[in-house]
Amino acid sequence: MSKAPTLAIDAMGGDFGPPVVFEAAERARIRHPDLKLLIYGREPQMREQLARFARLAEVSTLIHTQDVVLGTDKPSQALRRARSSSMGMAIQAVKDGQAQAALSAGNTGALMAMAKFMLRTKPGIDRPALASLFPTLRAESIMLDLGANVECGPRNLVEFAIMGAAFARTVLGLERPRVALLNIGVEELKGTEQLKEAAAILRQQAFAFEFVGFTEGDKITSGEIDVIVSDGFTGNVALKAAEGTARLIAGLMGEAFRQTLWSRLGYLFARTSLRALRDHLNPNNHNGAVFLGLNGLVVKSHGSANVDGFATAIGMCRDLIVDGTLERIGEEVARHPLPEAITEAAGVAAPVIAQ
Amino acid sequence: MSKAPTLAIDAMGGDFGPPVVFEAAERARIRHPDLKLLIYGREPQMREQLARFARLAEVSTLIHTQDVVLGTDKPSQALRRARSSSMGMAIQAVKDGQAQAALSAGNTGALMAMAKFMLRTKPGIDRPALASLFPTLRAESIMLDLGANVECGPRNLVEFAIMGAAFARTVLGLERPRVALLNIGVEELKGTEQLKEAAAILRQQAFAFEFVGFTEGDKITSGEIDVIVSDGFTGNVALKAAEGTARLIAGLMGEAFRQTLWSRLGYLFARTSLRALRDHLNPNNHNGAVFLGLNGLVVKSHGSANVDGFATAIGMCRDLIVDGTLERIGEEVARHPLPEAITEAAGVAAPVIAQ
Repeated sequence: MSKAPTLAIDAMGGDFGPPVVFEAAERARIRHPDLKLLIYGREPQMREQLARFARLAEVSTLIHTQDVVLGTDKPSQALRRARSSSMGMAIQAVKDGQAQAALSAGNTGALMAMAKFMLRTKPGIDRPALASLFPTLRAESIMLDLGANVECGPRNLVEFAIMGAAFARTVLGLERPRVALLNIGVEELKGTEQLKEAAAILRQQAFAFEFVGFTEGDKITSGEIDVIVSDGFTGNVALKAAEGTARLIAGLMGEAFRQTLWSRLGYLFARTSLRALRDHLNPNNHNGAVFLGLNGLVVKSHGSANVDGFATAIGMCRDLIVDGTLERIGEEVARHPLPEAITEAAGVAAPVIAQ
Repeated sequence: MSKAPTLAIDAMGGDFGPPVVFEAAERARIRHPDLKLLIYGREPQMREQLARFARLAEVSTLIHTQDVVLGTDKPSQALRRARSSSMGMAIQAVKDGQAQAALSAGNTGALMAMAKFMLRTKPGIDRPALASLFPTLRAESIMLDLGANVECGPRNLVEFAIMGAAFARTVLGLERPRVALLNIGVEELKGTEQLKEAAAILRQQAFAFEFVGFTEGDKITSGEIDVIVSDGFTGNVALKAAEGTARLIAGLMGEAFRQTLWSRLGYLFARTSLRALRDHLNPNNHNGAVFLGLNGLVVKSHGSANVDGFATAIGMCRDLIVDGTLERIGEEVARHPLPEAITEAAGVAAPVIAQ
């Protein structure tokens, strides 16, 4: 990539808005001096924030937008503000080639609908997918699709495997990631027809990753697999089941430590060591769900991301741009004969995730 | 129920076999003096165990069986030993009316295949489902299907709702459980056609439970919903994703407490309080996955269940028998007009769960 990596940021999304976005941008600027930023939002608020960081102003361009997509907006409502909102205009910058990626902490359904509608899927790819990092016992794994598609055919699953592997190469630094299809058993006969057909294709052809076959839900967090591939319905349920379980345990653990004077004391003693646990499970350290397979990268930050989390997402966008992840996906898809797309009707079909 | 509740137990299943089974049976006998037991397995081993508990011998009948279903047996292999194995003969006792429920800690796939093949689905019910308890932030919830069916139609999901609600009335003691369909969003337009159709039926008719609509994966453990209904593929993935997450956090927590002298000390101080957390998450305290919808009850204990866990499962079986849970399900299904069954071909179709 010869020209400077350029990222379009929606400054108005998320629970905290411009103050978090600009502080995170300043942090990312220090880490990645090559990065240029186009920042979209309400100009007065943005000016005020940018005034805090003189050096950031040198690599940033502020673009005033009238509208903001609300967290409560339905995708259809948001689409009407595609040309006037900070979210829509950030995606438009990618479409126009001014930026190579767009980042927003706003409404996920709206972001996916807009991204799909405005950028369209890459030639050769039937459907995009939402991919994200998961903490594991060893380091991190990647799972996709987390909810961009309700139902998927074998072709889609193979595409997701290719896209997830390319993502893993960039963000996990793995030359040959281990990729598996999420199923209800590891035996070849298990699961749906779609899964069996996808597995057959992945076994027969030589991909730029290691296909290890089927895997089960408990392997998402075990660290044995790098990329876990599923349809968007299953992936979304698995993601939320994992989140719910983490919340359950955190809640019970908080209660336990508060229970007696002894347990409070115990917490004080163990606090520093427990911090590593909290850090590893902290969504801010794995922030950035990437919408892959479109003509341009669109990344969703957690709505509740703090400065660390949003800076992580900016860094991820920059790495994906510099590594040419999208181009790699295009090349890998072009190299492989895949079965027919199961639907063209996908279009702006209801994206489903809501983080 | 006029005659004494009678349970058929496979003594040879699970990681620990007869020693755990008989000690658990003794404990259950003390709690439930009305219970009669038929215990199947290798007679010499069983005699040796029963000799430890004189009073248990009074309510137990031992039946010698030649064969044992192995954990590694495929369902098709196990089926060939339906008439000679401890697992198969326990189910046969239910079929013959000698017992009202069968309990095994053995191979899940084999148990489901045998139960389906030998007992067949109850008249009016298209497909059985595997249901289990989950710990939540408040108490416990029930989820089904956990893997008896790969794909489900709207009729199946409605049947699962009825069966799960009847299970909840018995084991959670709820008069009007809150039942929801597992989906990727709560809005009516979300999800697959099957889910939307099932929701329409559940909204239109008056059931003996409260249908609260769609729910998401993080609600399995939140305690806001009592019964979470899904197809067996999704339920199985969600169950294992939750298990994997719990294992991840437990692993990280163990590391954290071992890290420094301070954290070891902290653990000592907080140990008693942390025990409540461990107890609530301990699978032994929620043991017993029930295979519902057949002509007789079949319950699967965790293979790793200890005496507490197996005694819990025996108690659950007894309660389900005494409450007439199966009869309630039959009555409730008969009261409701449901759409056509999507397949008769299900038969002994590959059951999928492996605990």
